[in-house]
Amino acid sequence: MVTDADVIVVGAGMAGLTAADRLTAAGRSVLVLEARERVGGRVLNEAPDAAAPEQVVEIGGQWLGPTQTRARTLAARLGLQLYATHTDGANLLERRDGGLLRYRGTIPRINPVVLADIGQAQTRLDRLARRVPLQAPWRAPHAGHQDAVTLGTWLRRNVATRTARELLTVAVRAVWACEPHELSLLHALFYLHSGGGFASLIGTSGGAQQDRVVGGTGLLATGLAARLGDRVLLGRPVHAIRAGDDAVTVTARTGDSWHARRVIVALPPTLAGQLDYHPALPAARAQLTQRTPMGAVIKCLAVYDEPFWRRDGLSGQAVSIAGPLSAVFDNTVPGGSPGVLLGFFEGAAARRFSLRTPGERRDAVVAAFTRLFGARARHPRAYLDKDWSGDPFSGGGYSAVLAPGTWTGYGHALRAPVGRLHWASTETATIWSGYIDGAIRSGEHAADEILRAEDSR
Amino acid sequence: MVTDADVIVVGAGMAGLTAADRLTAAGRSVLVLEARERVGGRVLNEAPDAAAPEQVVEIGGQWLGPTQTRARTLAARLGLQLYATHTDGANLLERRDGGLLRYRGTIPRINPVVLADIGQAQTRLDRLARRVPLQAPWRAPHAGHQDAVTLGTWLRRNVATRTARELLTVAVRAVWACEPHELSLLHALFYLHSGGGFASLIGTSGGAQQDRVVGGTGLLATGLAARLGDRVLLGRPVHAIRAGDDAVTVTARTGDSWHARRVIVALPPTLAGQLDYHPALPAARAQLTQRTPMGAVIKCLAVYDEPFWRRDGLSGQAVSIAGPLSAVFDNTVPGGSPGVLLGFFEGAAARRFSLRTPGERRDAVVAAFTRLFGARARHPRAYLDKDWSGDPFSGGGYSAVLAPGTWTGYGHALRAPVGRLHWASTETATIWSGYIDGAIRSGEHAADEILRAEDSR
Repeated sequence: MVTDADVIVVGAGMAGLTAADRLTAAGRSVLVLEARERVGGRVLNEAPDAAAPEQVVEIGGQWLGPTQTRARTLAARLGLQLYATHTDGANLLERRDGGLLRYRGTIPRINPVVLADIGQAQTRLDRLARRVPLQAPWRAPHAGHQDAVTLGTWLRRNVATRTARELLTVAVRAVWACEPHELSLLHALFYLHSGGGFASLIGTSGGAQQDRVVGGTGLLATGLAARLGDRVLLGRPVHAIRAGDDAVTVTARTGDSWHARRVIVALPPTLAGQLDYHPALPAARAQLTQRTPMGAVIKCLAVYDEPFWRRDGLSGQAVSIAGPLSAVFDNTVPGGSPGVLLGFFEGAAARRFSLRTPGERRDAVVAAFTRLFGARARHPRAYLDKDWSGDPFSGGGYSAVLAPGTWTGYGHALRAPVGRLHWASTETATIWSGYIDGAIRSGEHAADEILRAEDSR
Repeated sequence: MVTDADVIVVGAGMAGLTAADRLTAAGRSVLVLEARERVGGRVLNEAPDAAAPEQVVEIGGQWLGPTQTRARTLAARLGLQLYATHTDGANLLERRDGGLLRYRGTIPRINPVVLADIGQAQTRLDRLARRVPLQAPWRAPHAGHQDAVTLGTWLRRNVATRTARELLTVAVRAVWACEPHELSLLHALFYLHSGGGFASLIGTSGGAQQDRVVGGTGLLATGLAARLGDRVLLGRPVHAIRAGDDAVTVTARTGDSWHARRVIVALPPTLAGQLDYHPALPAARAQLTQRTPMGAVIKCLAVYDEPFWRRDGLSGQAVSIAGPLSAVFDNTVPGGSPGVLLGFFEGAAARRFSLRTPGERRDAVVAAFTRLFGARARHPRAYLDKDWSGDPFSGGGYSAVLAPGTWTGYGHALRAPVGRLHWASTETATIWSGYIDGAIRSGEHAADEILRAEDSR
């Protein structure tokens, strides 16, 4: 069979673009088929203010942490500058009763019993997490037990105070975009280990939210795509993959087909499961992809003439027990104008506000910002949000949320190639799974897997 | 737009065929598009012995219970006879240590403390189940709590003895084809209520396994299909549904398209989620279908010259704590020849044996039958099994297994039509969800929904 490329990559998110870039660098011919009319997947730059299209902010993944070395290396290779997420000033905690508490650093001055309760839970989770093998979480010493309970059940058993449970629940929403009862304890432990522990995942300075990319993380995707040039074909939603003995045929909904020796499906597993495979995938792989639902998140941005909260000594960072926004950040771009506030609906709140009209959603976000930062927040000059669950080419975010039984029952099928088919996406990463960095690592891994397989023939 | 039919039904399982039949009876024109070259979905007749093709046994859903009135009515309409599942003789319980215990009726003569423990658990589950509204399980009095824990967590908290937990786990596998930690307590309660309670679900006489259809339940599907005639098109795997203001266009992988005023997607939700929808489905519906994984079951049949176990005073029914088969039945057809034993790999055992070769699987099944029924079981004259998880047009069985958070977070999107799109499949049924009867009811419901909608225009 005459092939169109050595390797076809399905999906031009960070995983697919990285794989294609690496294979190209190794001298392989590559074709990237992307469903949308844009690259980037869950990474997406937008200009919230139509009147100022040059003022770009991310409506998808946006932060780089200090240990996210593959993402940082890529940014450097592409000549992109990093800058620190704004943290100067006091943070806010919105309590259950709506009361506001100002604090500095990562720890609010709440009841020391509650603080100790949170601290011991974090310590225990981190200790358990370190014993989960990243390549094979199902081989953890207590994998059977840990994959038989939800993180919510663990929190109820191991956290004594209500406020501590509530604050940990806010952290769970911020990390996984779901409620604590939606994910397996084992999945939570894998993910914590993968990202370097609890503090690393939830932290700004020193943590996953430490740095930003000047011009937006979207430039990571468009930068890679520019290097790949016409190897990236947009508007080709792949729907069928037919694997033969020597080659694979990939067909898009447009009716076009391409042939290659190998294929990397660089989609979240739940979307990979929506393609038609011939021959049918092994039962374990097919059932795995039925069990990798995406978290639920709506990312919301409000633009103001300036970051007025800074003059009040506020950092713009807030967490809320009362909700509906779980976490809020100052998302102002370098230079300080315009001022941008960022809020997330996550988990149950995302589901609830997904059913509202865009106007109702805007009103709720503006009301939340106003409660936190005062009346000047009431009239943003622009507002933008994105409900990732309603985007059929992402399916949700930030990442897949594995329920009890999935890692132990099906984990072996998450990364294992099936003949000439290889899998990439941040969900398959062992380091920083769920993050941009993990997506890049997963793309590198899939490319290396193919290079090794082809070398050994 | 010129339409090909008033209604297109996607999927010729029991739900789709029933909907089509009902709409046809109401004077509507219907087209049923089926992916496979056969009708029936999870209902399938097979002749396990190639040398005796007339000796038909079901390799899919096979039983009708006394309260499964819609399935019984259909059987009667099609002129099919029912007969009782064979229960004469002693049942066997294979204990954890492999020891065999003979008993009659539904209750083995085990430790009365264990029996009491099982009894109280059943009673409590049934009582909780009756308070779960079948139309809206998320409105149960304690839905939030019940959907935040797995059935496994509930069993560990509420069942004191290990043997009772093990026997209840065998029952869970038999009912849901999964392990207790894979499903939400709320889903278990909904399902119990839907099927009339614990005893109704697990029972033979008086329960869901009471009766069989002479000639096999496959005749329910082929009988309906015969009435529909050339309205059923086989070998048309639908992959895209495009809804316009006045009509819907349905496209198959063959490239053919059809137009209708309304569409019933009569597939398990996880498979419905694999289609391309234009416009994209609402976020809640899209994320729901990411959260409706099918159970894991391999159904295994061994054929012997005669049901030799009956002469030993054995019913052929067995349950095993030791495994790997969880439940065994005498599946001999009327007349007593040939003798057929039926065994199920369910949940974790199904996953394990899905990875084995067919020969290894056969050996394990024959070894299990030999432990239960003696050396004469060692050499069946034919053996047949089907791993439903590996069948891309079913995705697994018996039904969808909802993890914590799904009913409360997304349940409202399970049955609600989306514009001109309606949903059917046993998963959407309120009565006997997960069973043939539920599939029929769901098809009737979807048809009625359309008739009402069209009447009110």
